[in-house]
Amino acid sequence: MTRKYRIGNPIETDSVVQDIEVTKGEIPFFKKDDEEGMLSLSMSKKNMVFGLGETVRGINKRGWIYTSFNADDPNHTEDKRSLYASQNFLIITSDDRSLGVYVDTPGRVTFDIGYSQQDQLVISFEDFDADIYLIEADESEASLSRSESLKNIVKEFRHLIGRSYIPPYWAFGFGQSRWSYYTEDEVREVADKYDELGIPLDMIYLDIDYMERYKDFTVDDKAFPNFPDFVNEMKNRGIHLVPIIDAGVKIEDGYDVYEEGVKEDFFVKKDNGENLVAAVWPGQVHFPDFLNDKAREWFGNKYKVLLDQGIDGFWNDMNEPAIFYTQDHLKEVFDAIEDYKGKNLDIKSFFAFKDLVGSIDNNEADYKRFYHEYKGRKIRHDKVHNLFGYNMTRAAGEAFERLSPDKRILMFSRSSYIGMHRYGGIWCGDNKSWWSHLLLNIQQMPALSMCGFLYSGADVCGFGADTTEDLAIRWISFGIFTPLFRNHAAAGTRYQELYRFDSKDTFKKLIDLRYALIPYLYSEFMKAALNYEMLFKPLCFEYDDDRSREVEDQLLVGDSIMIAPVYKQNTTGRYVYLPEDMKMIRFRAYDDYDEEVLPMGDHYLRADLGEVLVFIRKGRVLPITEPANRTEALATDNLTYICYEADAKSYDMYTDDGITRI
Amino acid sequence: MTRKYRIGNPIETDSVVQDIEVTKGEIPFFKKDDEEGMLSLSMSKKNMVFGLGETVRGINKRGWIYTSFNADDPNHTEDKRSLYASQNFLIITSDDRSLGVYVDTPGRVTFDIGYSQQDQLVISFEDFDADIYLIEADESEASLSRSESLKNIVKEFRHLIGRSYIPPYWAFGFGQSRWSYYTEDEVREVADKYDELGIPLDMIYLDIDYMERYKDFTVDDKAFPNFPDFVNEMKNRGIHLVPIIDAGVKIEDGYDVYEEGVKEDFFVKKDNGENLVAAVWPGQVHFPDFLNDKAREWFGNKYKVLLDQGIDGFWNDMNEPAIFYTQDHLKEVFDAIEDYKGKNLDIKSFFAFKDLVGSIDNNEADYKRFYHEYKGRKIRHDKVHNLFGYNMTRAAGEAFERLSPDKRILMFSRSSYIGMHRYGGIWCGDNKSWWSHLLLNIQQMPALSMCGFLYSGADVCGFGADTTEDLAIRWISFGIFTPLFRNHAAAGTRYQELYRFDSKDTFKKLIDLRYALIPYLYSEFMKAALNYEMLFKPLCFEYDDDRSREVEDQLLVGDSIMIAPVYKQNTTGRYVYLPEDMKMIRFRAYDDYDEEVLPMGDHYLRADLGEVLVFIRKGRVLPITEPANRTEALATDNLTYICYEADAKSYDMYTDDGITRI
Repeated sequence: MTRKYRIGNPIETDSVVQDIEVTKGEIPFFKKDDEEGMLSLSMSKKNMVFGLGETVRGINKRGWIYTSFNADDPNHTEDKRSLYASQNFLIITSDDRSLGVYVDTPGRVTFDIGYSQQDQLVISFEDFDADIYLIEADESEASLSRSESLKNIVKEFRHLIGRSYIPPYWAFGFGQSRWSYYTEDEVREVADKYDELGIPLDMIYLDIDYMERYKDFTVDDKAFPNFPDFVNEMKNRGIHLVPIIDAGVKIEDGYDVYEEGVKEDFFVKKDNGENLVAAVWPGQVHFPDFLNDKAREWFGNKYKVLLDQGIDGFWNDMNEPAIFYTQDHLKEVFDAIEDYKGKNLDIKSFFAFKDLVGSIDNNEADYKRFYHEYKGRKIRHDKVHNLFGYNMTRAAGEAFERLSPDKRILMFSRSSYIGMHRYGGIWCGDNKSWWSHLLLNIQQMPALSMCGFLYSGADVCGFGADTTEDLAIRWISFGIFTPLFRNHAAAGTRYQELYRFDSKDTFKKLIDLRYALIPYLYSEFMKAALNYEMLFKPLCFEYDDDRSREVEDQLLVGDSIMIAPVYKQNTTGRYVYLPEDMKMIRFRAYDDYDEEVLPMGDHYLRADLGEVLVFIRKGRVLPITEPANRTEALATDNLTYICYEADAKSYDMYTDDGITRI
Repeated sequence: MTRKYRIGNPIETDSVVQDIEVTKGEIPFFKKDDEEGMLSLSMSKKNMVFGLGETVRGINKRGWIYTSFNADDPNHTEDKRSLYASQNFLIITSDDRSLGVYVDTPGRVTFDIGYSQQDQLVISFEDFDADIYLIEADESEASLSRSESLKNIVKEFRHLIGRSYIPPYWAFGFGQSRWSYYTEDEVREVADKYDELGIPLDMIYLDIDYMERYKDFTVDDKAFPNFPDFVNEMKNRGIHLVPIIDAGVKIEDGYDVYEEGVKEDFFVKKDNGENLVAAVWPGQVHFPDFLNDKAREWFGNKYKVLLDQGIDGFWNDMNEPAIFYTQDHLKEVFDAIEDYKGKNLDIKSFFAFKDLVGSIDNNEADYKRFYHEYKGRKIRHDKVHNLFGYNMTRAAGEAFERLSPDKRILMFSRSSYIGMHRYGGIWCGDNKSWWSHLLLNIQQMPALSMCGFLYSGADVCGFGADTTEDLAIRWISFGIFTPLFRNHAAAGTRYQELYRFDSKDTFKKLIDLRYALIPYLYSEFMKAALNYEMLFKPLCFEYDDDRSREVEDQLLVGDSIMIAPVYKQNTTGRYVYLPEDMKMIRFRAYDDYDEEVLPMGDHYLRADLGEVLVFIRKGRVLPITEPANRTEALATDNLTYICYEADAKSYDMYTDDGITRI
């Protein structure tokens, strides 16, 4: 049961697709403090809190304070309150009655989940305007277990926000990326090396340097002299090139996107009516006003430039939006620097000076310098900040429906808000080659599933910082289960294409295993999308025992299996908790594995580098196919079935042509 | 057996106290590459590498690359290669023969421990000048188990480098710190609040703001109008005030330390003979040339100013040295900034501009701008960089032997090199209130024990970033076992004195437990110091089974007990591996605990907030005393003994008066 309450006069977000009448009267469960702009709730020691999508820390969100205000911050350390997304859905569990809460407002909201006081959940609003949706398990709730009630709440929420984006089947292949492959020869080399080793690959990503001086919808014709031919060459090899698109449009005379945007008034404006001059990769840019229907349609149509050259997938970046600087602020900074010149700078003045320059980029004050035309009103950016990336990706998604009405297009984004899940997936931003970020990747997946971002994943092996061979093996060993499965690395870091390492055979076996699992992963993905369910679940969404509540490093993937990835260095095994008897599969390769039924309880299991632990649930089936070097060559019939007290036929296999829109 | 080899013409470090003749000929085990300045060694899959003291990552150092070049870096993330210390001692284990290696050179050294290639250990030198000590277990080694051989190597190494610093007994109490308590009233309030709740406390730390404008050996007489009286007032309450001393001496006319240093030529100089003008907290400073015997003696004598006011403990900070800027470099930066003014800054120029300012502080190029007078030679700083903090603390330690010949003085430092362990302990620098840093604290302790830094610990509850109540409880629950046990927090972060939280009773019970354990902890500490042994050991230093090799989150503390701290949020238990049958004690308080003999093997054990798991080894005894609010009030007779298949009398209790030098 979903009830909608309204606080103040919220700005619409277009995140919800159901028309629900506002319930008058007090918001149940919460204490409302109008003066402070807060909703609060007492929690017992046993209450858990799940949700909030792409945030730091564990699966149970208790014990930290999170702020929804989309941020381009590459340091995803435990103390960060904001990352790239605002996904304000959470569930507070209790043993008798769990409660789903969706806080729908495009501005800044803070969730203090037992941070200030261990037993208090406090939601604070910068502007006390929001639609609050409260979701409880349906009428028969009295008879539902905790786990059933959790799933029930998620399902109801997902119906509220609409069906998740569905990518093409080939997007379940493995993708290789780097900032950047600079020329077509470099891209070709990546494809060649993977093919030489027989490591499957479906996608190669193009980061910012494929463009002509970082101009959206252009291609550098020195590096890629005949781009359509090259796209075609790759496609003939079964490899999709996936270019990046940035939020900022370079200010450059003669550049059509810039000139049209200026002419049609499609860029965001300062209070004085001038187009905001900000800067990102190319230097000075204007930002399209993605919140304006016409500008959004115009920008979306620009993707046609690349679709027409054979491109069928994109990633949208820098759409928090990231801002290196605004022209106005940069001038202020240079003026202010004068005051520090020639002085004896001490603790105060030195750090003030450093901070002056250090805080130029992604300076929150810049978000108050410009305005949108949104649903017929002029609204200052910071009030709708969290909708910007969403609407950039919506621009693309809506355009693809027009431009490619039959064929699915791959799309995922860095920044997001709930609602965007209908138009694309997300990747988890600029993580690092840290073991702790492998764990973070594991822990973020269920929260993303909850709010409908099913086609998602992190940059495996880590984006920033230098990876190690063992970290790469362990991260790949988890990444084989995430729908978006991309190896990506930042400029200046160690090269981490899998063929760079000694353990080539291990990597081949792991990626082969991924491809062998794709029929299962795709089937489970599609059922989760079409039935409004989660693809990744914490154990306590299926099991009601006390121990399952606290397991933060094992996940259920689809309906048949549980996984227990290794995320620590220099270890050859790990502890695994089985909430019921399960059949353990220790994969060394798709066709080389140990198989053993283990009793419910605690186990220390060997899982050396290259070994992947998968646990078949009782009464379930895991279908496996023969791997192939491309998804298009995978057989979806003639599968092998690993069963645990189940008949192979009982597996409900979803198949389709993998490309037609549904 | 220790053999000494010499490469090139190394600069002396004074880290070793034994006179060992140089063995001529090739260095065994290693491949030497004179061209590249490298020593390398192949590792089998089972080799482990222990050591390197205060570094990031786990107990087994395999799989990362570490650089010894002392750095003031407050972000101790997994990708960092350098922290505050250079402690170049490591042990490479193998099943038949382990090898201790001490790389004695004051310059930059890099240890690539299976990072570039998983099976290669490569030690690279900026200058190929070093004394290499190879240590193998003694003659009877053939009969030694791996664990005995490990302990044997450590013991031999510790004899090589001399006896560890021994603090006063009261330094085993609990200390409260913050950057900063600004006035005597603030300090008094801390003492009062702890006393009101009956939470034991022995020390309150004074961070930089107690000084008059950050001038070493001064006290701000507005904040502390009669400092000796105040020190005395606190001492009468049984509380020691422990002030910070910084490496930089403020340039200020009339300031005696500055004027004397200039007059006597005791400051480091630029190539042109002028005193280097650098800056830290007070703005412009000179750095004493701690490497110069006379300057060191002079600076050491300055501690008398505070000793005479009743102070009996200090912490030395900023002695990597941290440099905000040098006057010469700052001028260059301001000149260079001009080039960026009014430009359309793009990806290259914008980040170049940001980096120009972002890299002003602790800029490595500044370490090439000044010189020392060291052992009669003029040596550029970067060549002896890693000795600077060591020699600042040595200045203090040598002075204390003159100024306080009978009474021990508390001393610990941020930066260090091996050898400094004879003069003081270390704290693990500016960590953060992260769960991962609680684990790091656990994992660093054995490596610090290996190289003699016994009086050590991290800032519990975390220095930077905001702590949470549960993290504070868990961190305190581990911190009660570390000799240096200090709660410290940075300016701008959440207040974290234990009385600030709701769980006052839990904190009282935990600190009471610490005090109840002090007779054991002090006894084990003293035996480790006097017998050249480790206080904290990884399991595989005592147990030879395969599983013990990989345990990275349990430690042996002294000879009687193993601990298994909880370092994850939102959990009420953890897995524990017992390498033999042990008696588990689950402390809720020193006098309230469960006691159960558990069989060797894996266990999932409850350890809720406030519960501390301690495991008594077979045949061992844990003595416990009644807690008191100060260490001086602790009884050392009339103890309770928790025994596991042992007689209470079998415990070898070390006692002394806790203050006389030995």
